[in-house]
Parts: sequence; structure tokens; C-alpha cells
Amino acid sequence: MHFTSAQRIDDGVLEREFTLGEIPGTLWTPESAAPGEPGPAAPAPLILMAHNNGLPKRDARLMARARHTAAHGYAVATIDAAGCGDRPRSAAEEQARTDLRRAMQAGEPVDEIFESMIGPLVEKAVPDWRTTLDALLALPEIGGPVGYSGWTALGIRLAATEPRIAAAGLFAGGYVPRAQREEARQVTVPLLFLLQWDDEGNPRQRALDLFDAFGSRQRTLHANLGGHTGTPWFEVEDGGRFFTRHLK
Amino acid sequence: MHFTSAQRIDDGVLEREFTLGEIPGTLWTPESAAPGEPGPAAPAPLILMAHNNGLPKRDARLMARARHTAAHGYAVATIDAAGCGDRPRSAAEEQARTDLRRAMQAGEPVDEIFESMIGPLVEKAVPDWRTTLDALLALPEIGGPVGYSGWTALGIRLAATEPRIAAAGLFAGGYVPRAQREEARQVTVPLLFLLQWDDEGNPRQRALDLFDAFGSRQRTLHANLGGHTGTPWFEVEDGGRFFTRHLK
Repeated sequence: MHFTSAQRIDDGVLEREFTLGEIPGTLWTPESAAPGEPGPAAPAPLILMAHNNGLPKRDARLMARARHTAAHGYAVATIDAAGCGDRPRSAAEEQARTDLRRAMQAGEPVDEIFESMIGPLVEKAVPDWRTTLDALLALPEIGGPVGYSGWTALGIRLAATEPRIAAAGLFAGGYVPRAQREEARQVTVPLLFLLQWDDEGNPRQRALDLFDAFGSRQRTLHANLGGHTGTPWFEVEDGGRFFTRHLK
Repeated sequence: MHFTSAQRIDDGVLEREFTLGEIPGTLWTPESAAPGEPGPAAPAPLILMAHNNGLPKRDARLMARARHTAAHGYAVATIDAAGCGDRPRSAAEEQARTDLRRAMQAGEPVDEIFESMIGPLVEKAVPDWRTTLDALLALPEIGGPVGYSGWTALGIRLAATEPRIAAAGLFAGGYVPRAQREEARQVTVPLLFLLQWDDEGNPRQRALDLFDAFGSRQRTLHANLGGHTGTPWFEVEDGGRFFTRHLK
């Protein structure tokens, strides 16, 4: 893991860009023992923050969430996994995106296109996130336990197969491949599942069915009125309290 | 309003029983300006806490919620409205309860019995809650604004018709008469709607439909796994933050 830049931002947070082989990432860590208190930071619990559908790790809303979360005493990391964000795409991936745009404009069904696009994206992203998790937990400033926040399909795969994930906050707005809908029953860690009630591109009933399918006994759904990008800011704070209950 | 008893309880809260004509009630008020700080309390915002289905105001879970909420700087009041709790019941009300138990034991449909029982209960409870609200707002230690917490059917009627209610936290576990399901679209105050995902006696889909029907633009659903009485304690704290956003 090579740090390529570092800057101190508000609220006593250190923001560092890194590369790990071909994987570019960002790590936010608290600089003091507790928010507003002097003294060196103890090893912090870690939250992996993954953006839905391969948007770039520099997305403004993701960065605001990450900075806020780090200011409350967490190490927060995000990466552009293979095929996501600014990483190069194969000709097949570009073709799927072209097909998707065309089908959406024509009002045609998009499930099979999403399936062919998101299914492989999850498969390719998982090893990059595992590699990143290994490297992060080797840093002295990070002590675990580990939470996951964001992209539901990837979160299901990681939470179902990676015992180091202790709690997950998942955002329902995004296509979940059939394999991960099946795998949801194998997820048993505490869950906070966040749904936008009027999400234009993501059927509400499918999200409710997925919430119902998880194996976790401690499982909470938060639904707010509004479209895909309308999640109220107080849900970031609610997410912080969810992680405090399970990671601290 | 006549206070018939008063005791200081933990966390700087004064708990007083009162009567208002035939209405018995309990009022919890914070004793200092802010939790843990000395000095006289400023007039506090008020939360009306009404229990589902006419359980008594002395219910242990309701009292725990009320005390916790008052310790965070609210005046909290509950009453046994007409036909609720320890108030006398008419022969027709007793008969409806007998019919309900018999139908439930026989596994027969109960909707029409609930309709005949809960519909009139809401109608009779509303004037008692209004009378109580008038009396409470005349006390110097209560300043408003006013929130409502608990029994959904009554909360819909009050929030739809009583402009002094500024925000409502509603618990989905309870029969909501057809009149109040219709009236839900007239509710426009910020809402927190609390659902137990596996509530034995209350169909989940009906609760989701009701959440969908409200007129409020600021509207959040919290659903937790588990049965009717399994609401996790952290929802009391989430409810407190909801009221802080809208009443303080």
C-alpha cells in the first residue's frame, strides 16, 4: 500500500490517497483519540465504503459521508475496484453500458442487461476489496472490527463470505444480481438497510423482498420518501449510530 | 387539572399523576434547563404519548419511554382516554372484546370486529386528548411545540385535525379503522412510522400501504425484525432524535 497524497481536513481527519497494485483508494482516519479530544488516536474500527454501480470513489456524496464518519472515530476506506469508477473497462463492459442506455431510452426491460453487467462487476470487485481489507488491517492506526457501507450487491457477497465483516449498512438503490439475492440468506451480521421509497429505477417491492430474505436476526429497514438521490442527511448520522452499536 | 401525586425519579424528571374531570393522566417534566445542567427548566416542548389499543397508561414500556424522553428535555403526557386503560367500558365495548377473543381463538376473521371496536374508541378518545392538550399548554412549564407518539389510529385523527401537532411518531402495530386509513392522506406533518416486521396480529402489507398513503412529505419508516412487542430500545432513542429535529 503506497500513499500518494495526504491532507488534513476539517474535524481532525487525515485524508490519504493510496494505490495497492492496480487498485486506487482513499483512506480517512481520525487524528485524535476521540472527536474533539487531544492525544494520539487509538487503532480505529474500519468501515469499507463502497459506492453503488461503480460510480467513482471521488463522488461528492460518498466523500461527505466518509469524512463525517471518520470525524466520529472510524477509519473509512473506499476504492475503485476492477471495472468500477475510473478503472478501465473491457469492450464487453462498454457494450453492456451502451445496451443499457439504449434500452432505458426505449423503455424496454433492463433486468437482463443489468444481470449481465452487475453480476460480473461484483465477481471482479470482491478480490480487490479483500486485498484492500488485508492491507488496511495491517496498518497500526486501524484495529478493526470491520463494517461495510454502501453498494448492496457487493456487500451481500462480502458479508456472506468474509468473516471479518461484523456489520453492514446497505443502500437498496441498485440492481442486485440473482446470485446475491440468493446469497442474502447467508448474511447473518447486523444489518441496516436503507431504502428510498420512490427510487425511480429500483422497484420498491424487490427491495422489500430482499430485506425479508436476509439471514440476519438484527435487521433494520429505514425508508424515506423521495427518489434515488434524495436520502436525507440524518441517515448518515443514523448509520453512524448503527455502527457504534456494533463496532465500538 | 388537579395533580394528585408527584415524585422525583432518576435523571431529573418529575412524574405527576393528574385528573382532568374524568380523565386520569400522568405528566413527566424535566426539572432542569438541560439534561445534567443546573438551573430552572425553560418551558419544554410537549409530547403526547398514547398507547395502542387502549392499554393502561401505567404500562411498563410506555412509562420507560416517557421517562427516557422527559430526561432528554421534553414534557411528556399520557392519559387513559374514554374507553381506554382503566376507564369503565360500556356493555357494547365488553361484548366486542368478548367477540374478538372468541374469533381469534377460532381463527376467524377479526377485521369487522376490530372495526366496530377501534372506530368508536378513536372517536371517543379524541375529545379527551384535546381537553388534555388545552390544559397542558396552559401550564407554565410547557411551551410547545407539540409532538405525538404511539397509537397510530388516534395519531392520524389528531394530526389530521389538530394544527397544534407538529410531528408524529406512529407505531404500526394496531388495527387502523377504515376512516383513519382514508384520513391518512390529510396528515402532512413530519412522520416517523415504526413497524415490527413480523407482528403477529398486524398484516405487514397493510402497514406498508398506510405508510404509502400519508400526505407528509417528510416521512420515514423504521422496520425491525421481530414480533409485536419486540421493538428494540434504540428506536426510543431514534424517536428522540426525530422529535429533536422537528420540535426543538
